[in-house]
Amino acid sequence: MYLGKVIGTVVSTSKDSSLSGCKLLIVARLTEMLEPEGSTEIAVDTVGAGNGETVIVAQGSAARRASGHDHSVVDSAIVGIVDTVETVGGGRL
Amino acid sequence: MYLGKVIGTVVSTSKDSSLSGCKLLIVARLTEMLEPEGSTEIAVDTVGAGNGETVIVAQGSAARRASGHDHSVVDSAIVGIVDTVETVGGGRL
Amino acid sequence: MYLGKVIGTVVSTSKDSSLSGCKLLIVARLTEMLEPEGSTEIAVDTVGAGNGETVIVAQGSAARRASGHDHSVVDSAIVGIVDTVETVGGGRL
Amino acid sequence: MYLGKVIGTVVSTSKDSSLSGCKLLIVARLTEMLEPEGSTEIAVDTVGAGNGETVIVAQGSAARRASGHDHSVVDSAIVGIVDTVETVGGGRL
Amino acid sequence: MYLGKVIGTVVSTSKDSSLSGCKLLIVARLTEMLEPEGSTEIAVDTVGAGNGETVIVAQGSAARRASGHDHSVVDSAIVGIVDTVETVGGGRL
Repeated sequence: MYLGKVIGTVVSTSKDSSLSGCKLLIVARLTEMLEPEGSTEIAVDTVGAGNGETVIVAQGSAARRASGHDHSVVDSAIVGIVDTVETVGGGRL
Repeated sequence: MYLGKVIGTVVSTSKDSSLSGCKLLIVARLTEMLEPEGSTEIAVDTVGAGNGETVIVAQGSAARRASGHDHSVVDSAIVGIVDTVETVGGGRL
Repeated sequence: MYLGKVIGTVVSTSKDSSLSGCKLLIVARLTEMLEPEGSTEIAVDTVGAGNGETVIVAQGSAARRASGHDHSVVDSAIVGIVDTVETVGGGRL
Repeated sequence: MYLGKVIGTVVSTSKDSSLSGCKLLIVARLTEMLEPEGSTEIAVDTVGAGNGETVIVAQGSAARRASGHDHSVVDSAIVGIVDTVETVGGGRL
Repeated sequence: MYLGKVIGTVVSTSKDSSLSGCKLLIVARLTEMLEPEGSTEIAVDTVGAGNGETVIVAQGSAARRASGHDHSVVDSAIVGIVDTVETVGGGRL
C-alpha cells in the first residue's frame, strides 16, 4: 500500500460493467514527507474519500478484496483515509 | 488503473490462441494533466476504443476480468473510454 | 522481498474492515549497503517490528500469506526482522 | 503486455523442474517507435520466436496461461510474433 | 524472470513461519551484458546457488511455484543457475 492524495475525478460512460457505479479518483503517490513523488493512478474509492484527502491505496489483487469489487477489473483501490502520519524524520499530517 | 491514450495498433498472426480475435492497441500512459509520461504498453481493447482516445487501462490479473479474457494471456486491458477528467490542478479533458 | 527500514506509522480510523487492528508502518526500501534507495510504502507489521528496525518486506499476493491477512486488502507486509546482512561488497548490519 | 525484441539466449542446467525443455530468451523492451527503452528480462518462448524478432511479451500470472506452463515458475512469456506496428507518430515495423 | 547475481545473505530469526529453513539471498539485477543495473532484492534460493553466481530469478506468484513454497510469503525465488548467456550484442558468460 502507499500514501496518496486525491487530486481529481475521472468520468467514463463506456466502461466495463464491473465499474458501474464506482467512483474513480485520480490519486497522486506521496513520499513519507507527504510530498508528491511524481506518479498518479486511477483508484476506486471504497471509503468515501474526497478531493485533497490523504489516503491509503492498495494495488493489484488486494484492491479487489475491498468491499464489492471481488469480480471486477479493479487493480487499485482507496482502502483508508489517513488521520495521522508520524515519521522519524518528522513528516506529520 | 491508469489514464492512457491509444496511439497505435499491433498485428500478430503467430500468437497464443487466447489472443485470437483480440484487438491489440498501443497505449501511452498519461499524467493527470493528460501529458504522455513516457511509457507505453500493449493492451487488449474491450470497450471499442479508437486511435487518439483517452482511456482507462487495467493491469495484471484484473485485466483478465474484462469480458471474454478469463483464461487468456492478457495482462493489460482497456476497460473504459474517458469522458472527462477534472483535477485540482486544472487538468481537464 | 526487499530490505526495508521502519521509519514511521500511519493511523487511519476510516478504513477497510480487513485492516482493523493492523499496525500500518511506513517502510523505506534499502540498498544492499543498507542505504535508503528513495521509495517508501505502507506495510502491515506481522512480526512485531519497531521504528528504526531493518526488516524483510513481502509484496503482492505473498503479503496476504502472512498470518491473519488471507482475505484482506493487504498488498505489503513486514515478514521478518533482520539480524544480519552480509554482502560481497562489505555491507553489514 | 509489451513490445520486445529477442536479443539473446540463456542456458541453465540446474533449474526448477518446471523449466525443463523451456527455451529461455532475453528480451529487450521496446518503445512504440521500436527503439530499446533500456530494460531486459528473461521470457519463455511459446511461439517459436528467434533472435532479432519483434515480439509480444506477457508478464505475471498471465504468462503462465501460455500453453504448457500452468504450474511453472514462469513469470514472463513471449506470446506473439509481431507482423506490423502502426503508430500515430509513424512508428512502423 | 531476470538475470541476477548473488551478492549477499540475510539472516533473520524473527520471521514468518513459512520462511523457516529458507536460505535468503540478496540478488543484484543484471543487464543483458551482465552488468549490475542498480536494483537488488531478497530471493529464496531453491537451486543451491552461492555467492557470486549468475542466476535466474522469478517474481510474484510464480516464485511460490518453486519447490516447497506454495503457501509461503515468498515473492521472489532463485529458480536457476545460469551456465551461459549469449546475446546479439556479444554479452557472454
